[in-house]
This record gives sequence, C-alpha cells and structure tokens, in this order.
Amino acid sequence: MKIETLRWFNNRLEMIDQRILPAAFEYLSYDSAASVAEGIRSMVVRGAPAIGVAAAYGVALDALRLSFVLRQAQDERIEFDKDMETGFTVLAASRPTAVNLFWALQRMRKVWEGVAAQTPQQIAQRLLAEAHEMLAEDIRINKAMGANGAALLKDGARVLTHCNAGALATAGWGTALGVFRSAVEAGKKISVIADETRPFLQGARLTAWEMVQENIPVTLITDNMAGYMMAHGEVDAVVVGTDRVAANGDVANKIGTYMVAVLARRHNIPFYVACPLSTIDLSVASGKDIPIEERSVDEVKGFRDFHWAAEGVKIRNPAFDVTPAELVTGLITEKGVVLGPDVHNIKKLMSS
Amino acid sequence: MKIETLRWFNNRLEMIDQRILPAAFEYLSYDSAASVAEGIRSMVVRGAPAIGVAAAYGVALDALRLSFVLRQAQDERIEFDKDMETGFTVLAASRPTAVNLFWALQRMRKVWEGVAAQTPQQIAQRLLAEAHEMLAEDIRINKAMGANGAALLKDGARVLTHCNAGALATAGWGTALGVFRSAVEAGKKISVIADETRPFLQGARLTAWEMVQENIPVTLITDNMAGYMMAHGEVDAVVVGTDRVAANGDVANKIGTYMVAVLARRHNIPFYVACPLSTIDLSVASGKDIPIEERSVDEVKGFRDFHWAAEGVKIRNPAFDVTPAELVTGLITEKGVVLGPDVHNIKKLMSS
Repeated sequence: MKIETLRWFNNRLEMIDQRILPAAFEYLSYDSAASVAEGIRSMVVRGAPAIGVAAAYGVALDALRLSFVLRQAQDERIEFDKDMETGFTVLAASRPTAVNLFWALQRMRKVWEGVAAQTPQQIAQRLLAEAHEMLAEDIRINKAMGANGAALLKDGARVLTHCNAGALATAGWGTALGVFRSAVEAGKKISVIADETRPFLQGARLTAWEMVQENIPVTLITDNMAGYMMAHGEVDAVVVGTDRVAANGDVANKIGTYMVAVLARRHNIPFYVACPLSTIDLSVASGKDIPIEERSVDEVKGFRDFHWAAEGVKIRNPAFDVTPAELVTGLITEKGVVLGPDVHNIKKLMSS
Repeated sequence: MKIETLRWFNNRLEMIDQRILPAAFEYLSYDSAASVAEGIRSMVVRGAPAIGVAAAYGVALDALRLSFVLRQAQDERIEFDKDMETGFTVLAASRPTAVNLFWALQRMRKVWEGVAAQTPQQIAQRLLAEAHEMLAEDIRINKAMGANGAALLKDGARVLTHCNAGALATAGWGTALGVFRSAVEAGKKISVIADETRPFLQGARLTAWEMVQENIPVTLITDNMAGYMMAHGEVDAVVVGTDRVAANGDVANKIGTYMVAVLARRHNIPFYVACPLSTIDLSVASGKDIPIEERSVDEVKGFRDFHWAAEGVKIRNPAFDVTPAELVTGLITEKGVVLGPDVHNIKKLMSS
C-alpha cells in the first residue's frame, strides 16, 4: 500500500488526519497557509519532513489564493507581498522544534525572491511547482537514505524504533521506517519493535499500522519496556528519525529518544538516526540551543477525550528531547552514513 | 485522608477497586481465597505488600468459610485440610513476581501448622487474627521505613518515582510514597515527579491521586520523559518500591524501573528502593532467577476498553523488569538503609 501522507487534489492540499489513525483513515483539505499551520500545530500532519512539505504547500496555497483575489480586485501588488509575509509568519509559528519547517520556508522564500519581478499569478505557479518538487524530492531522498541505512542492518535484525519516522512522517517511504522498507526490499528479513510513544501514541497507532500494511513483522511495547527488551538480548539495533540535528551532531527527536539512546549504549546496541540533510541545522552549535516545544498538558492527562489522570496533578509535556552526539553510532543521510557524528564530519558532509 | 486499601468489614475482606481509581472510589467485597486470588490477578489490588496482606486474608476467609460449612454438615476434618490446600494453591497462582505473596502464604501456613490440633473454628479465628496482625504490622513497618528513608532526602528535594508504591500498594502509608509522607511529616518540603507507568497507569491514576490527597506537590510525566527531566537537572533523587529483591541485591519492580535506574546512574542521581524485609528473597541468587509475569496483551492495546493500537500488531507485556544491584544506591528497609546492597550486607541485614 502506497501511503500518500500529503497530496495535491482539486487545487487543495489534502493531508491524512493522523490524529484519528488507525481507527479511521481520512483526508482533510487545506486551502491557505493559516489552515495548514493549524493542521501542523494540531498534529493532523506530524514528522519533521512531512511538516516541511506541508509548509511549502501552505506558502503555495496562499500565493494561489492571494493572486486569485488580486485578479478579481486589481489590488496593489504591495498587498500581495504583505499577505504572503503573514502566511510565512503563521507557518513559522506552528511548531518550533523541527528545523525542516524553517528550511522549507526559507527555500520557498528564495524561490519567491527569484521570481519577484513576475506577476502574482506567475509567482504562485512557480511556488506550487516548488512544493510539488519538494514532495517528490523527499521521497527520492528517503529512498537514498533507505538504501544507505539498509546496508547497516544484518539479515534477521530486530530493530527498535521510537515514535513514527515513517511514510506518515514524510511525503512517503519514511526515514527510519524507510530504512526498514529498503532493507526488506533488498531481501533482508527485518523485524521491528515499536515503542508506543506516549502521549500521542505515534508508535502504537502509526508505526505499527505502517508495518502491518507492509507485512513487516512488528511488535508493540510500551515506552518503558525498551530496557527490558535490550537486557533480554531482543534488540540488535535502534533506528529513529530526528527533528533537528545540531552542528555538533546532537539529535533532537520525539520525547523518550534520549532514554532509548542511553540504554542502547549500556547494552552496546548501535543507535542510528535517519536524517535527511534538510534536518541538519548548522546554525545551532549544540542540542542545548534547539528549542523544545512544550505542548498542552491535556495530551498527558489521557488520550483524546479519555482522561485518566488524577484531578489536581501538575503536568509536564515536553514533546522532544536531545540525545548527545556521543550516544549516536551514526547519522544515516541521503549522501551516506556519518559514523560518530561530530562538528567536523558533519560540516564536511554538508559541504561535499 | 487515611487510605484503607484493604479492610475487614462484616466478616468480609473489602478492597478498593484500583482499576477504576481515580474516576471512581469503590470497595469490592471478598469472601473466599478464590475470589481474593481473582482480585489479585485482575489488579483490583496490586502492589507487593498489599498483595501479601490480601493473600493472608484470602487464607483466613477460606478457613472461616470451610469451618462454617463443617459446623453445619459435620464433614470430615480431612475435607477441611484438603480444601484449605486448594485455597493456598489458587492464591499462589494469582501473580508470580511479588515475593510478598509467597511470604504471606508461608507465614499463614506456619500459623496453621502451629494450631493444627485445634478445631477448624479455632484455626480459622487464629488465621484471621494473623491476617489482622499482618495488616497492622505492614503499616508499622512502612512508617519505620519512611523514617529511615526520609533522612536520605534533603529539604526541597524533587523526587521521581515510578508506578505506585503508596498506601494503595500496601495496607496504608506506602513504601516509596511512605518515605515522602514521612519526610513531609518531619517538616521537609518534598515534591514528587510521577511517571505515568503504562500500561496500567499506576502513576497517573494512583500515585498522583495519593499525593494530591496529601497536598504533596506532584507533577505527572509520561514514562519517556524521565530522561528529559534528569538531563534538565529537575530530579534530585529516585525512590521506588519493589516486588522482589534477590539475595545479591538485584531488584524486580514495575516495568520501566530499570530504565529509570540506568538514567539515574548516568546523571549521578541517587536511586533508592523502599523495601520491607518481606520483599527480600534469599532463595533467589540473582535477578535472573526472579519469574517475570507477562500479562495480557490487551493492556498494551490501549487502556480499559479504549484500544488505539493498530490491528494485527504483535504485542509484548512483561509487567516487571530487573534492576541490577550495582545501580541501586540503597535499599530502605524497616531495619535501616543498606547502601550499595550486595550478598554480604543483605545477608547481614536479614540475620541481624
């Protein structure tokens, strides 16, 4: 089954509603930057690369919408530019941690600047073409990463992953799950252990669902069972995705990733991070400079509308944590694998 | 608020139904060993010391029931002994990991053997008195442990705990939470960080509820946030309970405890285990000899009847894990604190 996390349909962006998977499979439709930003914020779409592509479409949607209004009303070009800026701003404010969002907005801005002399209608078409290209490119990059990562996994490997770095976190194929897909495509037997990933349950709902669709054997555990599985020799490798990698190789990813990395080190299990170059942020020196989103405490009270937590308890909800580079065996990128990532080999990779 | 996890009322054992807390507070009533065993198995009552006391009452209930039948029907004494054995067997089969269950059954058996020459009615009264004594003794022991543990916590300490080792896990007061209660009673400011503890959510439902009742500040996190909190310097100490401690100091406790211990060591945070002597099992040499219960996969699919996991995924559900003694800063017992527990100082403690 080909999973189209985002698709262009009838001049709208459609996104699978990941809040209700796997109980229901539904597309929601978006026609503006503001609505896409809300879709990102509320986690209709999530996963760093998918957020980036969604944001690119958000910019294109506003350009189309605003150029259409212009055509009707003969408004001033200055209004178009101002309203486009509003769209960029609202998209940039949707979620803070994944750098792909900012990377995508910057790329769209450059395209815009490159055709600034053209009409709003021409600008809109050029921005839409760029968003389409970013979607297609994301899948190509994931497949290149998948091939690079698959080579690291031995036949029969039992691989633990945290959260969902799958087709649903990207335009398709996936980063960490893309590695598993590529390994299986290359003829290897791979089995996956999925942490359920509280509070949003990306592992139980999304990773498990994707792997079942692919007929890749998958075992679900609660987040607190990863240590047990490793101590019992049931994990050969860990592969996760990431929302932002700092210049020194520190990795921000879904809350709980750090705990898995610490345990993997204790048990001498390799810990790999599947990471497209768009996720590496040379502008932040180390993980402590990466902004960590704190989300609504309602997410921790229970799941959806079912709240089980005791009344009156305080709640914390940091959505990400930082794994120091020293715990990362290797970054899997579309340009190859960087073993023992540090400021030098990451800079070299980015400039090669 | 005094929490009576178990109470003797109208010649029945009543137990708070911990499956529905904190949404509802209800007692269920038990009149036989078999029904108490089912209450233990289904986690109406849970927590190693509470299970022990419940089992003791289960034995007493069968003795009362069987001696009453005898009085009516003049049955043979041999029938009484046989049926009593059945009760012991069904109770021993209820849950495998917590040793307090077996400790309590052994203690009741010794009492029985001591009065074997008496009438069934006299035996029943003696067994009931012993169960009452075990309940009262459990609270006394918890308070002694609490005082010993409280001395380890500095004023203002932010203490992380996993699962519920509280009044609800014992006859009252609690082991780990008993330490917090005793510290607060001694005038210290203590704040608690509670892991939610999937899949049964003892932290979110029970520990958070108990601490709110006591007006002890408590912050709820998902299990995968403990590493984040430690890395951000927000945890001064860890105190947990235990279901069985091996002769060498290895500690079996609720799944996820091992992960917390590994992280505590990385961050040089003391990791204490509140452990009545009844939880120490000198008959098992090390943690790998402790039987680990695997519970129904339904628990991991969701919570209660709300299942969110993808259909078709395999599931694991080990209910406990083992923390090696080398990660344990100290065992807090009613006889004092054993720092750096090992086979020698544990043997010394038990024979002192």
